[in-house]
Amino acid sequence: MPVTTNFMVTAHIRNLDYWSWAPAMDVIANDHYLDHRLADPLAELSFAADLTRGLAGGAPWMLMEQSTGAVNWQPYNLAKAPGQMLRNSLTHVARGADSLCFFQWRASAQGAEKFHSAIVPHTGTDTAIWREVLELSATLDRLAEVAGSTVEAQVAIVFGWESWWATDTEARPSQGVNYLDQVHAAYRAVRELGVTADVVAPGADLSRYRAGVVPCLHMVSDRQAAAVVDFVKGGGHAVITFYSGIVDEQDRVRLGGYPGAFRELLGVVTEEFAPLPPGRQVVLDSGARASLWTERLRTTTAEAVDRHAGGTLAGVPAVTRNAYGSGQAWYLATALAPADLRDVLRGAIRAAGVVAAGPESDGSVEVVHRSGGGRRYAFVVNHGDKDVEHPVAGRELITGAQVDGLLRVPAGAVRVVREEPPR
Amino acid sequence: MPVTTNFMVTAHIRNLDYWSWAPAMDVIANDHYLDHRLADPLAELSFAADLTRGLAGGAPWMLMEQSTGAVNWQPYNLAKAPGQMLRNSLTHVARGADSLCFFQWRASAQGAEKFHSAIVPHTGTDTAIWREVLELSATLDRLAEVAGSTVEAQVAIVFGWESWWATDTEARPSQGVNYLDQVHAAYRAVRELGVTADVVAPGADLSRYRAGVVPCLHMVSDRQAAAVVDFVKGGGHAVITFYSGIVDEQDRVRLGGYPGAFRELLGVVTEEFAPLPPGRQVVLDSGARASLWTERLRTTTAEAVDRHAGGTLAGVPAVTRNAYGSGQAWYLATALAPADLRDVLRGAIRAAGVVAAGPESDGSVEVVHRSGGGRRYAFVVNHGDKDVEHPVAGRELITGAQVDGLLRVPAGAVRVVREEPPR
Amino acid sequence: MPVTTNFMVTAHIRNLDYWSWAPAMDVIANDHYLDHRLADPLAELSFAADLTRGLAGGAPWMLMEQSTGAVNWQPYNLAKAPGQMLRNSLTHVARGADSLCFFQWRASAQGAEKFHSAIVPHTGTDTAIWREVLELSATLDRLAEVAGSTVEAQVAIVFGWESWWATDTEARPSQGVNYLDQVHAAYRAVRELGVTADVVAPGADLSRYRAGVVPCLHMVSDRQAAAVVDFVKGGGHAVITFYSGIVDEQDRVRLGGYPGAFRELLGVVTEEFAPLPPGRQVVLDSGARASLWTERLRTTTAEAVDRHAGGTLAGVPAVTRNAYGSGQAWYLATALAPADLRDVLRGAIRAAGVVAAGPESDGSVEVVHRSGGGRRYAFVVNHGDKDVEHPVAGRELITGAQVDGLLRVPAGAVRVVREEPPR
Repeated sequence: MPVTTNFMVTAHIRNLDYWSWAPAMDVIANDHYLDHRLADPLAELSFAADLTRGLAGGAPWMLMEQSTGAVNWQPYNLAKAPGQMLRNSLTHVARGADSLCFFQWRASAQGAEKFHSAIVPHTGTDTAIWREVLELSATLDRLAEVAGSTVEAQVAIVFGWESWWATDTEARPSQGVNYLDQVHAAYRAVRELGVTADVVAPGADLSRYRAGVVPCLHMVSDRQAAAVVDFVKGGGHAVITFYSGIVDEQDRVRLGGYPGAFRELLGVVTEEFAPLPPGRQVVLDSGARASLWTERLRTTTAEAVDRHAGGTLAGVPAVTRNAYGSGQAWYLATALAPADLRDVLRGAIRAAGVVAAGPESDGSVEVVHRSGGGRRYAFVVNHGDKDVEHPVAGRELITGAQVDGLLRVPAGAVRVVREEPPR
Repeated sequence: MPVTTNFMVTAHIRNLDYWSWAPAMDVIANDHYLDHRLADPLAELSFAADLTRGLAGGAPWMLMEQSTGAVNWQPYNLAKAPGQMLRNSLTHVARGADSLCFFQWRASAQGAEKFHSAIVPHTGTDTAIWREVLELSATLDRLAEVAGSTVEAQVAIVFGWESWWATDTEARPSQGVNYLDQVHAAYRAVRELGVTADVVAPGADLSRYRAGVVPCLHMVSDRQAAAVVDFVKGGGHAVITFYSGIVDEQDRVRLGGYPGAFRELLGVVTEEFAPLPPGRQVVLDSGARASLWTERLRTTTAEAVDRHAGGTLAGVPAVTRNAYGSGQAWYLATALAPADLRDVLRGAIRAAGVVAAGPESDGSVEVVHRSGGGRRYAFVVNHGDKDVEHPVAGRELITGAQVDGLLRVPAGAVRVVREEPPR
Repeated sequence: MPVTTNFMVTAHIRNLDYWSWAPAMDVIANDHYLDHRLADPLAELSFAADLTRGLAGGAPWMLMEQSTGAVNWQPYNLAKAPGQMLRNSLTHVARGADSLCFFQWRASAQGAEKFHSAIVPHTGTDTAIWREVLELSATLDRLAEVAGSTVEAQVAIVFGWESWWATDTEARPSQGVNYLDQVHAAYRAVRELGVTADVVAPGADLSRYRAGVVPCLHMVSDRQAAAVVDFVKGGGHAVITFYSGIVDEQDRVRLGGYPGAFRELLGVVTEEFAPLPPGRQVVLDSGARASLWTERLRTTTAEAVDRHAGGTLAGVPAVTRNAYGSGQAWYLATALAPADLRDVLRGAIRAAGVVAAGPESDGSVEVVHRSGGGRRYAFVVNHGDKDVEHPVAGRELITGAQVDGLLRVPAGAVRVVREEPPR
């Protein structure tokens, strides 16, 4: 019998290292609910989908639970806007889900979950929710051929639960540095650059990627660190952010200068962490702004890309780049503001030769490619309130229209094009 | 032996359903302390007094505890301004109290309550507090004839502890929706309209009132719902606010569309709740503003009085009115801003033929009538810093002056007129 | 064997009355770490040093623990700026420390304290921290002759742990009134006036001081109160702030009018406390601003120095002065804004004939004198980013330079002058 369970890859559950559990599953399944306590719930949805695909080793997976509307366990349980459930659902499909389930069929009349949305609401079937479920079902029928294909990605983001636990522990340099925030910040920047990323485990072989992003990977074993070092040595481009590489798998600080495990790779030595208090910003020579964290850092072999423009760290490098083997390793020794982080990542990712799947945006447009069996599908999800265009040719599966080279995606809509000629 | 106990009808104690306890008391007594953690402590005083009178079935009651000055259990225990203790005390009398007691005679020198005010402060009797107690005592002597009379009210507000518990439970659509806040909002609007209301139990016979206000009555039994339905059928005007009628007395959702118990009465069906996050406002066609809560609602037999002017709910009714039997039933599907709530209630209450006891104000002027034994008393409490006038004729009991048709009430003063000729 | 222990005279540890423990120690030792959760961490450092000296009865003491850089137990553990560790260390010396130790020698690689700074950081000895420790060591060698001298002070601040516990208990007039805040406010004002103060126990003989400051000394025994009264009677000048003298050592309120123990000394009677809610300010006739606390006060023998300019307390004295015996006793019945508190204290301290050790500043310049064995040393600590000058003549011990009457202290530097001719 095939075995699975509903993983909970989500922002508020961190207690299990799914990397260690996933190999025992025959199919990977996840529960996902939008979390309106986060700054960018949609980016977290995409991240969770990509991480679930990572747990599946890139293979298709199933969304075992999602909601038709509001949940009941957040402080303010927002309803979904018209069309949102379909967009959210197809975002999961774009990112590798081959099946979609809901919690729950019928809204319960009693008990702690009675105000959780359902396929059949308390009001019954003469409702927008019921009709949207029917529409989703019909849409999925039209996308049946996508099943079995896999997602294309040229960038890897390294994510590990052990770094989450180690970063967010007590008695640390700054309680403002929380692992998932830093991962989300990096993921969000990559997503807004129009780039699709795989989310992979510490220690994963990165050789098939052009670029790797390593946000706040505080706890790394020698083997896990070597995977990043080897990747760069072999020509890869890595971007590593602050607080990475500090402790080994026994939570023992790697002595001799931070960021221990990556010190030689990055060509820098940090003497001392210098966290910033809340509300404090620093400015770099480029005009970039940062907060939360700085370091008393000196370069050894790296080049200083950006430096502190003032304060007690004036002149100290904050962004560095090191040629290492055949590749490049960047270090971000501070928490850049979102636009500035995007700028640095854009430069690093372009230098690595990564081709974006879609346009840069504020995250309101997502383009993801799935391919397999000689076919390639371009998913375009338009979360925004303006129509967008995307250059692609082929058959659009939802409307059945032929696209001659420029796909128009109405505000709020999703389009899926089977590319012709196949790539 | 007559039996009583000191109920605690107040904002921060909710653990007992006094409706179930009150019948066992020979006289209803309450403890009341101004709570400066609330947005409008004086409105809460009036509400608590009216609710205590409701527990007494409209009969006179006793204030068993109040304070001469500050209490000691709030974060910031404010002293009373000169004259405030007398105004607060006579507000209780206006609203049905026939006796006033204090906690405590002598300020204790030791123990947890040592900084609670008293009739005799730590400083002794050469104090403003002692002199104000003497003044209150003399004033009450002049008002002796009021004892035994009852308060006049043409409006009922339905209040129930079970809805308080059910509304404020865990795992609900919005933790921003708190029962007492919603009750206070409705009460405050009625009070600022110059209208006296009785506070009655769910299921109470409303037939002697012209209008009934049913704020957030989340949990209602069939019998309790029928009391409201029958009232409207018989010609009453009811205003019901959101989250009312949702569950029965077993906390079981009434299926088929919200607001279950009142769906037919109100002529609306709500498919889905759509709570708003903190800080989010919506605007209606009339220009009214609302927050906290919205609903995906459609009318069946009701008329849409006001609709969402924009957003994903553009065009959806937010305030409705339904002709039902010989009466009218209004539904407020959102939390209107105070002035807008007052506007809607003014319209509904006027249409019901309710005659206000006093002028509209920001709550700084309260007029309440007590009557009995062929006499009628107009209490005018001026909490404000400007003199006010009130049209009434008769003998003013505190000053002994004859009032020929226009009573002048100095800033901060209270006046009580025995109306002549009697009504 | 001489016996000591590391006291923790600091803002966040209040559980022990060190006045009762200190006599059992052969030498007084303290741990001190800058606390960046406070409004003014440097003022707290100076206060803690002065209080430690007080525990030592004015004798030299040892700093048993401090940090070279950040700690690990605050929410945001800030690094020290270049030079700051030396300034902080010499501030302790200026205020009576004769030895300085650090926690810890070597930064641990593992365990809960692994991110606490050390003399040898994780990065090793090629670090600014290591070099600053060497510099401190060399500097202390040059200051060796200072050891054994004692600190000069003409002002005493009365501080007691029992008032801390009694003030910050539950069920009190205002949870906004916290003992240490009030002590820090008074201390900070004195320090910014350039005046050195001893911190002494309740009941200490004050006769060798010109002025005494008694902030918020809520709990006083008769004996402790008498020490203040006798001081004024004998010609001293005392400034007592609100909530002082209220209860005896059994936490029993002193009846007959606040501030009980000091009522006759101050020549005032307070009938009632009138705490202010958060965000509320009051203005006095002088234009001074205050918050947090007011009192319904009347003078008996005192003169009203400043009165409430408006509100329900208009005309009520808020700052009073009473001639008593050969001295003067001031009462501050409200929490003055920092600049206004400084104004009042300046007046009181000058009238007492106190000579400031250094200039008035925002706290960025500290001047303290140590003397003994016929020698006198002027410590000048410049925490600011501008050079300052201080009138003094003699040998500067750190640079070895001769100072002819005007010492220049560079931004961020410390200078110690052996005065010549000796005073």
